Amino acid sequence: MKSKRCAFLIFLAVLIVSRNALAESTNALHVTFPDERLTVSGLYWFGEDKPVLRRLPARLKDTFRPPVWGLAQSPSGGRIRFRTDSLSLVVVAQNPDASTMHHMTSVGQNGLDLYVDGHYIASAWPNKEAKIRADWRLGGEKKIRDVTIYLPLYKGITISEIILATDAKIESPSPFVLPKPVVYYGSSITQGGCAENPGLSYQSIVSRRLNLDHVNLGFSGNGMGEPAIAQALAEIDAAAYVLDYWANPSVEVYRDTLPIFVDILRAKHSKTPILLTGPFYFSKERVDSALAAKQDEKRKIARDFVEARRKAGDENISFVDGSEMLSSEQVEGLVDGVHGNSLGFYFCANGLEPHLRKALGLGPALKK
Amino acid sequence: MKSKRCAFLIFLAVLIVSRNALAESTNALHVTFPDERLTVSGLYWFGEDKPVLRRLPARLKDTFRPPVWGLAQSPSGGRIRFRTDSLSLVVVAQNPDASTMHHMTSVGQNGLDLYVDGHYIASAWPNKEAKIRADWRLGGEKKIRDVTIYLPLYKGITISEIILATDAKIESPSPFVLPKPVVYYGSSITQGGCAENPGLSYQSIVSRRLNLDHVNLGFSGNGMGEPAIAQALAEIDAAAYVLDYWANPSVEVYRDTLPIFVDILRAKHSKTPILLTGPFYFSKERVDSALAAKQDEKRKIARDFVEARRKAGDENISFVDGSEMLSSEQVEGLVDGVHGNSLGFYFCANGLEPHLRKALGLGPALKK
Repeated sequence: MKSKRCAFLIFLAVLIVSRNALAESTNALHVTFPDERLTVSGLYWFGEDKPVLRRLPARLKDTFRPPVWGLAQSPSGGRIRFRTDSLSLVVVAQNPDASTMHHMTSVGQNGLDLYVDGHYIASAWPNKEAKIRADWRLGGEKKIRDVTIYLPLYKGITISEIILATDAKIESPSPFVLPKPVVYYGSSITQGGCAENPGLSYQSIVSRRLNLDHVNLGFSGNGMGEPAIAQALAEIDAAAYVLDYWANPSVEVYRDTLPIFVDILRAKHSKTPILLTGPFYFSKERVDSALAAKQDEKRKIARDFVEARRKAGDENISFVDGSEMLSSEQVEGLVDGVHGNSLGFYFCANGLEPHLRKALGLGPALKK
Repeated sequence: MKSKRCAFLIFLAVLIVSRNALAESTNALHVTFPDERLTVSGLYWFGEDKPVLRRLPARLKDTFRPPVWGLAQSPSGGRIRFRTDSLSLVVVAQNPDASTMHHMTSVGQNGLDLYVDGHYIASAWPNKEAKIRADWRLGGEKKIRDVTIYLPLYKGITISEIILATDAKIESPSPFVLPKPVVYYGSSITQGGCAENPGLSYQSIVSRRLNLDHVNLGFSGNGMGEPAIAQALAEIDAAAYVLDYWANPSVEVYRDTLPIFVDILRAKHSKTPILLTGPFYFSKERVDSALAAKQDEKRKIARDFVEARRKAGDENISFVDGSEMLSSEQVEGLVDGVHGNSLGFYFCANGLEPHLRKALGLGPALKK
């Protein structure tokens, strides 16, 4: 009897110790966020505003309309990157709330994606109290791996700490193929609505493929092409600008803002490639001729604008036909007739990839 | 002054009348559900259990484990189909609640997708009271169109009525390429977890492509290969059976249930094609060798089982390597490391398509 009871007590002790062993061990390596060993990518002004994970700088807050500033609190495109030989990783984080929209998952709207050496591994999402505790395995054998944690697409987040194995090395992440990021400006679609995962905005998909850094300045319902945002974009020394803001403005506002927006960028960056996307296909264009006409007008505006600028001597601006990103035959890629779903953003990445390759001089894709 | 006031009153009157004109007009064609003019597809026993939109028959309720019966209340794969020349369509429906899981959208879990002539057009989702009121345009000019309404993947639904234009024709939907449905049995993944849209389970995607009918008998966490479900499947005169239940059972249960399950089908359907899928790739296999080993064991069990049956003379059973549905290079298609997202189900449909074509004698796909 005694030995049985003893065995049970040992079993119980092992159980208690092993439960969340890494997270609760005082020997684990607790890295309070922010920490210079953890690289934050995609949030261009993080350096001046840390620890806040935000997409626009506090310094310019008063120049933005309040909804734009509100949306900037969602760190879409933001990533925490480092290399480590730890076999496990805990992330302790908090959203302001755990709400979701009807066309987004909590994973994508509020949560985190883990990629190891460029491969998706796992995700995390908040509990009802909006607390996130990701508890991830990074590998089986001890070796240095590249870790990328994608931040939420549509909700703010505060990272408290990252916990690694006691003796873990932390090194700088592997470099991108270009030192400068590609900067995207646009609407909810640009912001990543409605990918199911933080790492599935079209920019994240195409950036992983090409090993590029990127900055996501899509603002849901508020990509109106206003000069204040153009001024902010112009602060960024970009590898390229992708202006993807066809969805929110009226036809007239779109037509009127394009020249001003591009002039502001060109005043500081005369040669940086600018890609202007035209509208992709809304499924309701098939049944609503007024909507189709409006979309077509914007397509023509974007195409004509680029053509005129090129004729006027700007060789570094180019047009991306939106139907290459999501065509009338790819409407399964829409979650609500308007916003991309995870499949739609895969289509968008496929369509944008050759244009980005050309603009950035990366050469054509290898045929699979 | 008087004429101004008059104009305003006319404007007001037009505004009031036009608001939800179709839905509220007593002249509109209100079709209470069910109605024999509205074809229900994908819910094989609807005929005996109507008006309940459910995946298993009440007659056999006592033969199923309670969780299986509970999950059968979610009409994944169910569709309401008809042809009409109405230019608009209202669907009035109700879910038992409007809750969502962390890895599903309300659209996909609770909502509806509208396809017109095979093209996705729009979606609907419940409000906080779990009421759905879809208000859709079907086209611009009056002509007969095929309408398909996809039902929720992971929640029950009651349809109250469908409202069309007053003088609308309602006709039988266009026929499928085969009169019998393809019947799928499996896990949460099979049930459609976690597509963002009701029409984006892999079965729905591949069925649209091939113009096939299908029955979805995936049961989240409960695709355990039990004989009671095999008996239910055997009631269906299927074009083919796809046994996709590798995810839920242990290695041992998977090995032990396969022969019994297939024997039950074969007792009634000696020649019907049976496709047995092996495990697709879980992203955590990359970092968890124990998980990878378990998946590999199931892969071997499925492959060996089919090989043995074919050697024993069953020419109509075939193996589908899960890595053709979602490979180690397609892990972006997972929402949480386990379940497909909308992109993942697109990959699954791509992988399954050639196997289905072969089994059903549909010929190879045209190269795009």
